[in-house]
Amino acid sequence: MKQYKPLLAITMGDPAGIGPEIALKAAVDRRLQQICRPLLIGNAAWMEKTLPAAGVELRIRTVRTASEAAFVPGTLDVLDLPLPAADGIIPGRLSAAAGDIAYRCILKAIGLARSGEADGVVTNPVHKKAINDAGHPFPGHTEIFARQTGTAGYAMLLADDKLRVIHVSTHVSLRQACDLVKKERIFETIGILNDGLKLLGIARPRIGVAGLNPHAGEEGLFGDEEMLEIRPAIEQALSLGIDVAGPVPPDALYAQAAGGKFDGCVAMYHDQGHIPFKMHGFSWDQKRGAMRAVKGVNITLGLPVIRTSVDHGTAFEIAGKGIASPGALLQAVDYAVVLCRNRSDR
Amino acid sequence: MKQYKPLLAITMGDPAGIGPEIALKAAVDRRLQQICRPLLIGNAAWMEKTLPAAGVELRIRTVRTASEAAFVPGTLDVLDLPLPAADGIIPGRLSAAAGDIAYRCILKAIGLARSGEADGVVTNPVHKKAINDAGHPFPGHTEIFARQTGTAGYAMLLADDKLRVIHVSTHVSLRQACDLVKKERIFETIGILNDGLKLLGIARPRIGVAGLNPHAGEEGLFGDEEMLEIRPAIEQALSLGIDVAGPVPPDALYAQAAGGKFDGCVAMYHDQGHIPFKMHGFSWDQKRGAMRAVKGVNITLGLPVIRTSVDHGTAFEIAGKGIASPGALLQAVDYAVVLCRNRSDR
Repeated sequence: MKQYKPLLAITMGDPAGIGPEIALKAAVDRRLQQICRPLLIGNAAWMEKTLPAAGVELRIRTVRTASEAAFVPGTLDVLDLPLPAADGIIPGRLSAAAGDIAYRCILKAIGLARSGEADGVVTNPVHKKAINDAGHPFPGHTEIFARQTGTAGYAMLLADDKLRVIHVSTHVSLRQACDLVKKERIFETIGILNDGLKLLGIARPRIGVAGLNPHAGEEGLFGDEEMLEIRPAIEQALSLGIDVAGPVPPDALYAQAAGGKFDGCVAMYHDQGHIPFKMHGFSWDQKRGAMRAVKGVNITLGLPVIRTSVDHGTAFEIAGKGIASPGALLQAVDYAVVLCRNRSDR
Repeated sequence: MKQYKPLLAITMGDPAGIGPEIALKAAVDRRLQQICRPLLIGNAAWMEKTLPAAGVELRIRTVRTASEAAFVPGTLDVLDLPLPAADGIIPGRLSAAAGDIAYRCILKAIGLARSGEADGVVTNPVHKKAINDAGHPFPGHTEIFARQTGTAGYAMLLADDKLRVIHVSTHVSLRQACDLVKKERIFETIGILNDGLKLLGIARPRIGVAGLNPHAGEEGLFGDEEMLEIRPAIEQALSLGIDVAGPVPPDALYAQAAGGKFDGCVAMYHDQGHIPFKMHGFSWDQKRGAMRAVKGVNITLGLPVIRTSVDHGTAFEIAGKGIASPGALLQAVDYAVVLCRNRSDR
């Protein structure tokens, strides 16, 4: 039986970043159209203009609606959003005009997913300042998705091979992150991770919960959050039958999980999860002064629409140079396809 | 010209841990006696007893003083410390008797280094609780070295290939670690790292300093320690001609350093440095339920004696099973040799 090929709305991202380039590179990957129906949400003329730098042979096919898309190999269907030529967007340069179209692409993609015209959304990187300069006061994609869909209980899951990490808090100071290490919040995060891992096809997820302090507090010697907040949350989750262990010393958990000991990790703060994640998937190229490989997908759990994203940024410093890797974008598509199939059972 | 072969006092570590096994495995590595004169500080009978589990062919040669050691290939000179047979030490089991001899080995090694009988010390893992149960109230090796040598300004440098990390604080709660992010302390740490990297043979070290908060605070949006404490410390170090950059977003710094962008990193707290370090050097073997490879050396900077150590623990769960890797110990020896040669100019 042939597996269902979901229609994925793939946003262009900030046109001055590497989004358009990696979208074109991904579009010529022969696997892409075998597993999904990719519809790029962006500006057709800008995508056309990016072809030489990306160094790919591809025909850009402009469509007005999702139903007009044909998904013919060798072509990329682009649902065209206007971008006034006078805006003068330049690769690598921050601008409100670039932020504005990046924002409009996200809204359009969310609309398609909500109406059922698309099965899911895959996003390319945007620049927070560009979006804010354009008058859209959001810290990032996730908050835009939450606002547009009226969602409160969402969380970001980072995934790369066997390493999957969810966070108890993200964009707050480290001091505030310590204050947010509370039993109820940790328990909820464990639950969201457990559900998310099941959606990824893991029948009985094994979850590892990190401590907050060095050596997970060493029995209260370096902090008591493990005893007062984390352990009780773990016990509550265990009582519901979730397979969860911890608090694990933070410097052991992620190396163990990357090797397969856990299907998912609960990180107590942004960098506790992001540092091992980028150590795992990123590889610095000293000669070029840029990341050689960037792997890693960001999945927003808890939304009424499926959304995955690359976990890297706009990389303005290498935009337009043709050296950006589409690896993370293809990974994000893979994850979106799995989520669409497991949700829709089609 | 033949390079100087330093005499290294290598402690046995906790006899119930993997120290004796990896010491034996390292002793049959043919490179060992080519680069140094290894003298094991431990119990000769226990080392003899560990031979079958380690699966190596080696003759244990008991000596009473360092000058009696012969350093003959195929043998391991052991400076013998008494271990009453009645103590009943069992691999993998915590005991005060094991902690006591581990502690005595450290004191003996420090004595040899201070008297000049040894050029440096390489330590195998001890168990904090065992040492404390034996009546020696120290959190770890480093504090024993500091006390015995009357040193106040010391710091731990983790090193593995291109990744070298020093910490502004280590064994304190994360909340307390936030309080310790102070200009003067950071500035001192940068200086200790700079000197240490030079001792490792790096003429002009390039140093990256991490932020404390996500995205290095994003211009004060998530915390102000970067602006109030870290940046001023960096500026002070720059004014002294040190090549130092930052504050770098923590989730970018270590992946960049591992690829060669920096010779050394300043971590703001224990796990910020230990998480990437273990992601880099440790590799989990899910089938065996143990780490397959453990790399990484811990160098104590600022002491009057040279001291390097493996960065892993006693690994009681695999002690006596013959599966422990001597990789980190051989690495620790390599670093000790470099430090001895650069210091002594012999």
